[in-house]
Amino acid sequence: MIMVTRKAHFNAAHKLWNPEWDDAQNEEVFGKCANKHWHGHNFELWVTVAGDVDPNTGFVIDLKVLKKIIEAKVIEPLDHANINLDVPFMQGKMASTENLAIALWEELWEALQHPRYRLHCLQLFETPNNSVTYYGPNGIPHHPQP
Amino acid sequence: MIMVTRKAHFNAAHKLWNPEWDDAQNEEVFGKCANKHWHGHNFELWVTVAGDVDPNTGFVIDLKVLKKIIEAKVIEPLDHANINLDVPFMQGKMASTENLAIALWEELWEALQHPRYRLHCLQLFETPNNSVTYYGPNGIPHHPQP
Amino acid sequence: MIMVTRKAHFNAAHKLWNPEWDDAQNEEVFGKCANKHWHGHNFELWVTVAGDVDPNTGFVIDLKVLKKIIEAKVIEPLDHANINLDVPFMQGKMASTENLAIALWEELWEALQHPRYRLHCLQLFETPNNSVTYYGPNGIPHHPQP
Amino acid sequence: MIMVTRKAHFNAAHKLWNPEWDDAQNEEVFGKCANKHWHGHNFELWVTVAGDVDPNTGFVIDLKVLKKIIEAKVIEPLDHANINLDVPFMQGKMASTENLAIALWEELWEALQHPRYRLHCLQLFETPNNSVTYYGPNGIPHHPQP
Amino acid sequence: MIMVTRKAHFNAAHKLWNPEWDDAQNEEVFGKCANKHWHGHNFELWVTVAGDVDPNTGFVIDLKVLKKIIEAKVIEPLDHANINLDVPFMQGKMASTENLAIALWEELWEALQHPRYRLHCLQLFETPNNSVTYYGPNGIPHHPQP
Amino acid sequence: MIMVTRKAHFNAAHKLWNPEWDDAQNEEVFGKCANKHWHGHNFELWVTVAGDVDPNTGFVIDLKVLKKIIEAKVIEPLDHANINLDVPFMQGKMASTENLAIALWEELWEALQHPRYRLHCLQLFETPNNSVTYYGPNGIPHHPQP
Repeated sequence: MIMVTRKAHFNAAHKLWNPEWDDAQNEEVFGKCANKHWHGHNFELWVTVAGDVDPNTGFVIDLKVLKKIIEAKVIEPLDHANINLDVPFMQGKMASTENLAIALWEELWEALQHPRYRLHCLQLFETPNNSVTYYGPNGIPHHPQP
Repeated sequence: MIMVTRKAHFNAAHKLWNPEWDDAQNEEVFGKCANKHWHGHNFELWVTVAGDVDPNTGFVIDLKVLKKIIEAKVIEPLDHANINLDVPFMQGKMASTENLAIALWEELWEALQHPRYRLHCLQLFETPNNSVTYYGPNGIPHHPQP
Repeated sequence: MIMVTRKAHFNAAHKLWNPEWDDAQNEEVFGKCANKHWHGHNFELWVTVAGDVDPNTGFVIDLKVLKKIIEAKVIEPLDHANINLDVPFMQGKMASTENLAIALWEELWEALQHPRYRLHCLQLFETPNNSVTYYGPNGIPHHPQP
Repeated sequence: MIMVTRKAHFNAAHKLWNPEWDDAQNEEVFGKCANKHWHGHNFELWVTVAGDVDPNTGFVIDLKVLKKIIEAKVIEPLDHANINLDVPFMQGKMASTENLAIALWEELWEALQHPRYRLHCLQLFETPNNSVTYYGPNGIPHHPQP
Repeated sequence: MIMVTRKAHFNAAHKLWNPEWDDAQNEEVFGKCANKHWHGHNFELWVTVAGDVDPNTGFVIDLKVLKKIIEAKVIEPLDHANINLDVPFMQGKMASTENLAIALWEELWEALQHPRYRLHCLQLFETPNNSVTYYGPNGIPHHPQP
Repeated sequence: MIMVTRKAHFNAAHKLWNPEWDDAQNEEVFGKCANKHWHGHNFELWVTVAGDVDPNTGFVIDLKVLKKIIEAKVIEPLDHANINLDVPFMQGKMASTENLAIALWEELWEALQHPRYRLHCLQLFETPNNSVTYYGPNGIPHHPQP
């Protein structure tokens, strides 16, 4: 088993806003991220697929196939979009990087099921300084014990 | 004379939209950038100041001073803001990277006038692949002749 | 469970020097890193926290909270410091990247204990070409068998 | 006048070989770059266009137009190509980064002639450590005097 | 246990070509990567070694030792080489990034066996957007279940 | 005329300290940079040489020659050194990035005098966010007029 990772980009707007809270509480918790007029980011998504190498091609997955899946499931709904308003799979959710990574896992999981490979993890950068890494609903590889 | 450059970041939303055009023309010209629900970027601004070295400090400009000026003139109005709606010096202008760089020059020029140094140029990245460089209203250092 | 990673920077001086060895042995083992007049680096630290998403915020951990903890535990003692001379938690230790990462784990572990999340791993870059990754005293996620 | 820069990528093979020299001289001058079986790079090209801002769009040049011109003149002939064998405008030339940058200027110059803007400079990276910058046949902005 | 990672670079040419297929099938499957005249990349390899810290040095592995091993096993055979034609350990294999990473594991494994440390994983970037990560023949740390 | 740029790295310690001032004034002006125990950086230097292309090689300057000059004039005196204490050409000078760039120009200028090319400019990064650019004692290409 070996892993293949491909990077994708999309530029989107969002705000952090809990509709069950009033303005003051939203501003206290989310600060500038609660700006009602939105703000935005150049998001960067690393999609990792793990599986075995096809001896005929030397590939786990043809990167042209992976690129097409990412175009359809990630770029098309998210690029130059408003995450809160425009993206069907983010409706009714807080538009945090964590929730966006979890939703993207659900969007990509089925398309990346194959007898030879499977989605392994997603890393989503909101800025070059902040990112989220998700290994799916069955948890992460390892977690230090207290 | 020597140049000193400092990098700054801000995350903002915008859209490209000419109010004198109808929806169809805006969408034809600006494509996804005309999304009425906005999109956004992690902007990166390189501010270059040129001048002589102060023999007492070895500095053209104290970077703590330059950082404070950038905080006040760039980060405070633009970070987590909507360029079209929230930024006083962009009102009534197309929110393109070109126009934002020209407006930032006007914002920074006076604060960076000093007997020993002066604002030299700005480079504004909208994405890692696209940027604008501005040397002020008196033009660029050199331009090839046809 | 999902992971959140935040990058921090600090500029510091150090030298590699074993006080139980004479000068010749230190220079043979550590080469230029044993320069008695010190040398230094722009260190970059990636702090990863793992946990569950708070449904009220969409966050595992509020990045403003994480940033404050990193400021207090990492930046304040280390930025513009001499690792061998100025940093309390490095006294009596070889100032290698490995030992600095282990010491930073100990500094951060308690502050990042929370019912919903915990410190997951640290990656410390001494230069863009060299880094150390630490998952705490209970070991690493996986290690190939001979 | 303001400058707009867009980055492009292409992966290509080449070798450095002067057909007027024998093998020994080629190997002495070009070292590993003279390998007869070729080697290759991920080239990165920064294309800078300078001009005035169109008040209707806020653009010097629509980046979609610039991208199409770069696709046709740079990516199509060079991506996944052998610079010595496959690229019409490099025939009979040493396949150095300098000569490739000069040839790309000639390819792009006419397509980027416009009443409002003109090609300003090209920066071509062969590796992240080595690049060439070209301002066209009329020379560079400034050159220190001895 | 702690991990140490060092980055290495090499520039090489290759093509993707299955000799059991005719030209049409190779071009259909591999597209531009099947160009008979080759293409190339600036490959970047991250070598991770895991082990315990030597209390005398503060090191898991002396980076000068690791650098020498990488020079001998990776840079010497691959830099400015043709992966298909010049590299002994790639003969008779598809020259994909996956197969190159697996072969490099085999090349490095023995040289990085030591009572205190062992090769942990390799990450090989073909371009800044595409990479492969390999943890050796005993598999990857974790893989999500369907 | 065309420009060739090569990047070099060195890790060094320094402090900012004016010996004509007392401690309080040094700390007020230089803040953390005045730490008597030093701090340090991974410096990055871009050396740009401009000239004409040699038709026999396609080179302005053979990068192997440029690399050797940078090794002798920059890396050898500065790498793993203390700029204030160890570097002959910085004695008696404030160890600022500005003064280091000017001194490196003087060190490199003569070695890069050649009938076909000459040193064109230096860009010295102290951190990824701060840099200095120097075109030599005859000044910079252009400077906006007030």
